[in-house]
Amino acid sequence: MLDYFRNKNVLITGGLGFLGSNIAHRLVAMNANVIIIDNLSPQYGGNLFNIEGIKDKCEIIIEDIRNTDILKPHIPRLDIIFHFAAQVSYVDSLSMPFEDLSLNASATLQLLELCRKMNTRAKIVFSSFRMVLGKIDTETMLENNPTNPLSLYGIHKLTSEKYLLMYYKDFGIPCVILRMTNPYGPRQQLKHSKYALIGWFIRQAMEGKTIRIFGDGKQIRDYILSDDIVEGFLRCAVSEKTVGEIVNLGSGQKTEFCQMVENVINVVGNGKIEYIPWPKNYERIETGNVVANLTKLQSIITWKPTITLTDGINRTYEYYKLNMVHYI
Amino acid sequence: MLDYFRNKNVLITGGLGFLGSNIAHRLVAMNANVIIIDNLSPQYGGNLFNIEGIKDKCEIIIEDIRNTDILKPHIPRLDIIFHFAAQVSYVDSLSMPFEDLSLNASATLQLLELCRKMNTRAKIVFSSFRMVLGKIDTETMLENNPTNPLSLYGIHKLTSEKYLLMYYKDFGIPCVILRMTNPYGPRQQLKHSKYALIGWFIRQAMEGKTIRIFGDGKQIRDYILSDDIVEGFLRCAVSEKTVGEIVNLGSGQKTEFCQMVENVINVVGNGKIEYIPWPKNYERIETGNVVANLTKLQSIITWKPTITLTDGINRTYEYYKLNMVHYI
Repeated sequence: MLDYFRNKNVLITGGLGFLGSNIAHRLVAMNANVIIIDNLSPQYGGNLFNIEGIKDKCEIIIEDIRNTDILKPHIPRLDIIFHFAAQVSYVDSLSMPFEDLSLNASATLQLLELCRKMNTRAKIVFSSFRMVLGKIDTETMLENNPTNPLSLYGIHKLTSEKYLLMYYKDFGIPCVILRMTNPYGPRQQLKHSKYALIGWFIRQAMEGKTIRIFGDGKQIRDYILSDDIVEGFLRCAVSEKTVGEIVNLGSGQKTEFCQMVENVINVVGNGKIEYIPWPKNYERIETGNVVANLTKLQSIITWKPTITLTDGINRTYEYYKLNMVHYI
Repeated sequence: MLDYFRNKNVLITGGLGFLGSNIAHRLVAMNANVIIIDNLSPQYGGNLFNIEGIKDKCEIIIEDIRNTDILKPHIPRLDIIFHFAAQVSYVDSLSMPFEDLSLNASATLQLLELCRKMNTRAKIVFSSFRMVLGKIDTETMLENNPTNPLSLYGIHKLTSEKYLLMYYKDFGIPCVILRMTNPYGPRQQLKHSKYALIGWFIRQAMEGKTIRIFGDGKQIRDYILSDDIVEGFLRCAVSEKTVGEIVNLGSGQKTEFCQMVENVINVVGNGKIEYIPWPKNYERIETGNVVANLTKLQSIITWKPTITLTDGINRTYEYYKLNMVHYI
């Protein structure tokens, strides 16, 4: 992998955000030429502190990806595009339907149209999520589950998936779609609780606050640390077998929501728990139990995530102990 | 049904087009209050002649449905919305990606947002097509087939389907999605061959021209006459059992493409056939053999289409013999 990325021209959309910046750190370490585009929109997770230490080793464009005039001159030289830029809150998507459509679907189409015209060789690695599936019948998430999204966020991520697959089929633009479960880890925003719950709870615990659990907290989730996500994205970017494929990327580990919260409290050594009923707006989009099946991932890249939840929460806590001031 | 529609306020988007205008004729005959909105965009099928005979019995708004300021004042009083307005050429969708996104997905979201804010009672009857499925493995089209659209047209129709199902689930806005196969019949534009092939071939035959068949013409299609489509739409609009459902609407009859062409030549009594290889751009989006399974339709509305292809071509030919001048 070291060899693969050396001197490769890599664009990261949303590269100042949580996952984008974590990938940027690894790519810079492997001597890739990293180009970041990020609009630093205040409600999302873009944060200049996320690239502390590699600032001078990346090309940084503070601009909206929908500004194609800015993006255009960079397209021809690209080898790989990690496409993370998004409206990232599925809870919020209904309160900004057209912004979600524009950022989570239309912007992907714009990017593909640029590639179709200027560079059909660059591989696009797309960040998708389990929300494209909606409620799954069995708790095991498979790549060929029916897609019945419960939110505009899920609908538009699905639309982007379809664009990518079609542009691959029609124009040979290589892509891989990674469907993540619940990511957490260093460099995620901790300003509010709308997404990124583990980070938010670590903050709550560090501040000695009470963490509220909706319902009985027994719903099963699959939490995956950013370090594992980055590894999965990089390996899938390199592998030719991923081209044109949708691949699950989760930890493959079942965790009850309340176990995760207890874990946070234990690691931080502060905070407490309170159980409250589900708020109306959340239950509506609650997706039920889910754990990712990783058979396809493993069969393609002979690797799967290994970091335990306790380890991951520890790493995340250690990061925020030092850097909390930059994330709140 | 007569009783049901009397004095109901019915909006038909794209109501000057092929299917919209055929529905308008039936609704006016049943004393519904019909409101038509249509932008008469020259490349599509909108045509004022389509409502010849009922012009004075409808409210006609010549405007783009995306102009929500025009649409808004009408929303509160509506009982039913037939949503036909669309970019209708799946072949062309790739040459106008953002227009297709805007008309075939975003406009549906705008309509739903208006309904959410002003009228969650009006039932939306949505015109969708088999293109949301892409190539199906078996030739039988079922409502729960996987959706792998091969065109932007198919992707955006699918996105609209997802919007409708979500807004029904979340806000109770009733909807029914009708997935049609290959519609034909009176009042379809005959200006070009990009869609509406039976009509186009009738015109070719009437003009004594040579009809070109791509490949061997053995691909199976399911052609449904507009009279049957209208009947299906009206019955599905009335039935409460259709709410929140996707329902196939085809003839259920298998026809080889070349049989259809021979049928046209026989009915018109003019024209001839030539076989040529598939043009590159068409093969790319060729969906393979397809015939609609109508089990769900029949089980819900205890009705299915009955008109034979020969009958349908005859009725269509009779119409254009009288009115060709208005459609070319």
